Amino acid sequence: MAKQLHLGAFMRPVSIHTGAWRYPGALPDANFSLAAIQRFIRSLEAAKFDYFFMADHLGVLNLPRQALMRSHTVTSFEPFTLLSALAGVTERIGLVATASTTYDEPFHVARRFASLDHISGGRTGWNVVTTSNPDSSRNFGLETQPDHAARYHRAREFHDVVTGLWDSFADDAFVMDAAKGIYFDPARMHALNHKGEHFSVSGPLNIARPVQGWPVIFQAGASDPGRQLAAETAEAVFAAESTLEGSKAYYDDVKGRAATVGRNPDHIKIMPAVFLVVGDTVEEARAKRAKLDSLVHYDSGIHSLSGMLGHDVSGFDPDGPLPDIPESNASKSSRRFMIELARAENLTIRQLAAKAGSYGGLAFVGTAKTIADEMQHWLEQAACDGFTTMFPYLPEGLEDFTGKVVPELQARGLFRTEYEGETLRDHLGLPRPDNRFFA
Amino acid sequence: MAKQLHLGAFMRPVSIHTGAWRYPGALPDANFSLAAIQRFIRSLEAAKFDYFFMADHLGVLNLPRQALMRSHTVTSFEPFTLLSALAGVTERIGLVATASTTYDEPFHVARRFASLDHISGGRTGWNVVTTSNPDSSRNFGLETQPDHAARYHRAREFHDVVTGLWDSFADDAFVMDAAKGIYFDPARMHALNHKGEHFSVSGPLNIARPVQGWPVIFQAGASDPGRQLAAETAEAVFAAESTLEGSKAYYDDVKGRAATVGRNPDHIKIMPAVFLVVGDTVEEARAKRAKLDSLVHYDSGIHSLSGMLGHDVSGFDPDGPLPDIPESNASKSSRRFMIELARAENLTIRQLAAKAGSYGGLAFVGTAKTIADEMQHWLEQAACDGFTTMFPYLPEGLEDFTGKVVPELQARGLFRTEYEGETLRDHLGLPRPDNRFFA
Repeated sequence: MAKQLHLGAFMRPVSIHTGAWRYPGALPDANFSLAAIQRFIRSLEAAKFDYFFMADHLGVLNLPRQALMRSHTVTSFEPFTLLSALAGVTERIGLVATASTTYDEPFHVARRFASLDHISGGRTGWNVVTTSNPDSSRNFGLETQPDHAARYHRAREFHDVVTGLWDSFADDAFVMDAAKGIYFDPARMHALNHKGEHFSVSGPLNIARPVQGWPVIFQAGASDPGRQLAAETAEAVFAAESTLEGSKAYYDDVKGRAATVGRNPDHIKIMPAVFLVVGDTVEEARAKRAKLDSLVHYDSGIHSLSGMLGHDVSGFDPDGPLPDIPESNASKSSRRFMIELARAENLTIRQLAAKAGSYGGLAFVGTAKTIADEMQHWLEQAACDGFTTMFPYLPEGLEDFTGKVVPELQARGLFRTEYEGETLRDHLGLPRPDNRFFA
Repeated sequence: MAKQLHLGAFMRPVSIHTGAWRYPGALPDANFSLAAIQRFIRSLEAAKFDYFFMADHLGVLNLPRQALMRSHTVTSFEPFTLLSALAGVTERIGLVATASTTYDEPFHVARRFASLDHISGGRTGWNVVTTSNPDSSRNFGLETQPDHAARYHRAREFHDVVTGLWDSFADDAFVMDAAKGIYFDPARMHALNHKGEHFSVSGPLNIARPVQGWPVIFQAGASDPGRQLAAETAEAVFAAESTLEGSKAYYDDVKGRAATVGRNPDHIKIMPAVFLVVGDTVEEARAKRAKLDSLVHYDSGIHSLSGMLGHDVSGFDPDGPLPDIPESNASKSSRRFMIELARAENLTIRQLAAKAGSYGGLAFVGTAKTIADEMQHWLEQAACDGFTTMFPYLPEGLEDFTGKVVPELQARGLFRTEYEGETLRDHLGLPRPDNRFFA
């Protein structure tokens, strides 16, 4: 059989797009509605998605009040409680939660994932993040966040401790011999006794080894240390490249780094994030996206535009052209991109702000056929192993994809028509890790 | 209407009794079986219990290998993941989770409870513990645990921060005005900006105020600082007095302390823990308990007995009498109790070990009628507001209580026959706390 795509969904209750809660038919109160999210995950499971990935932040984003008040992302469910509740209404789809290595304890993280893996029958994944949002630190007693290198150094040790704790018991430890009164064989239990630079953790973990051995390790490493951490530890990567060439280079780099450290490159799945808008015609899909982008409030868009330009442009006439602006320390690529766009399309500041406030990464906007073509091309060009999909508005944008694009992919033999295994590792074709302490 | 009892269940997956997993019909693999626990909570909800309270430890208990290997408590689910999964299969029963103020962060704890309160429709309670097990500290980077006073001092501030974070948003903050593009009113959001002795937390919490305002605060304070913390902050107390007189004194003391700090004593419910064994005759109930106690393995019992005596007695002849043992630093009351019991009933060390390894606190062992009589007497004597029940083995011991004793209590008008409200606060008759920042 030819290689198939993997598909995950990167979700917020209302959608990842800033304007989505205002879209006709959207559910702005999904932030408080378990029933809404149950509907979404049931659609994804019916479409045989590999996983449901819950976005997360450790705090309210530090935006100016005029931008923040427009944002449906200010409130959401906490990932572990949400995914545990969703485990009960699903049977097969994977459940991926973010946990921070900078602001949590390895014992807690290991235990929650092990518990969710038992509750879900082996369907969990851990998105390992170091938490880049600097404001999060002030919710955890720090005035400033640890620097990038320190966060990644701590993350590497955190991963070692968590996976070591997951290996606390051999799979056959729990003999439960009632006649002899032996609940478990203590020779099949290992106390980690980790003493490292950042952590000192005795163990053992007070829960049996996860169903999957270890939950699947996800990461989104983009920087050099991030890529290296992914190559050493990740099994699925939420990549953020916005072009085919960029993603091919990323794919080759990360899989190459994995091979260099002795891993099988097939055991690290590259899953670029892609924003998807489906129409019955390409024009309809583009019109949907334009309508959605128009719902980004000017106060949000102008804040995003100022950030990209590295210059506060909120004082200029919204309906005038972009004036010359001074050089700054902002990312040169995003600054140049917006200035060139303004000039090339003769855009007003208002039009430019709408683009800045929209999703800026990889997007496939078209029909079931054109989107399936693009996905197939990326797969055949070895630019990915699948996609981490993002929907423009919910439920309609999600159900457009599951109802129209997924059947097209299935008809081409590019996506499963039924789950073949039980666990997230089964879906992704990943091996169950050996226990480092027990054969 | 006369005053009614409240009933909660203090649960472990297999039971709180060391020998329970060996009892005929028990489910020793309930530690790994969500289905088993779903069955238990459905029975409790059908009986209209106020709450399901999940026992918890932050580590494997540091027992000698010969005792530990007998223990089904070595593995369990993590409370938040388990209770979130159970929220989906229940409608009304309260869900109480333990979270430690010594080994966790207020931002995480506030967020998980708020999320579970939204997921469950307002059914959560937080059992505030300072974690007395000294071995837990070694799973969190500390060689020794903080001392008792320091733990309680930190707990008081932790409670202030968590409740302050729960008040981050007014109930009417989320206007979700799609036409105007206003998701929430920023004037109805409060950043805590707490700077205290133990914690510095900026906030706001990135989740709407819990359905109940605050989840119900549970505590088990027994020491003087523990009672004071309960009087200042708790709304339900898991009391551990083993006699009617002791519980009356505890009830008066804690409610009196609450009044002294300006609280309504009716808003702190005293819920003594009670171990329940139900038979069709008193003799049958006693025989069930004796059988259960006989299933405590000698290696477990002798360890418990040595602990109570403050002297290692594992080297003596199990079938001989208890020799004179030297004075020690062990609790004088438990030491004297065991020595007097041995002399009075002429027990061998083996028989004494079986008693030491069993549950040593308040127990009602009898028929539906005798147990209802005892519960009624405690209520009428103002020794409690209800009970935190513990079952000897599962599912039978639980279903004996829900199937036989609960109907007897209901027939006497001592317990509800239907839930009257939706939330745990409704069940317990507790007011919804005002938001300290917003009218």
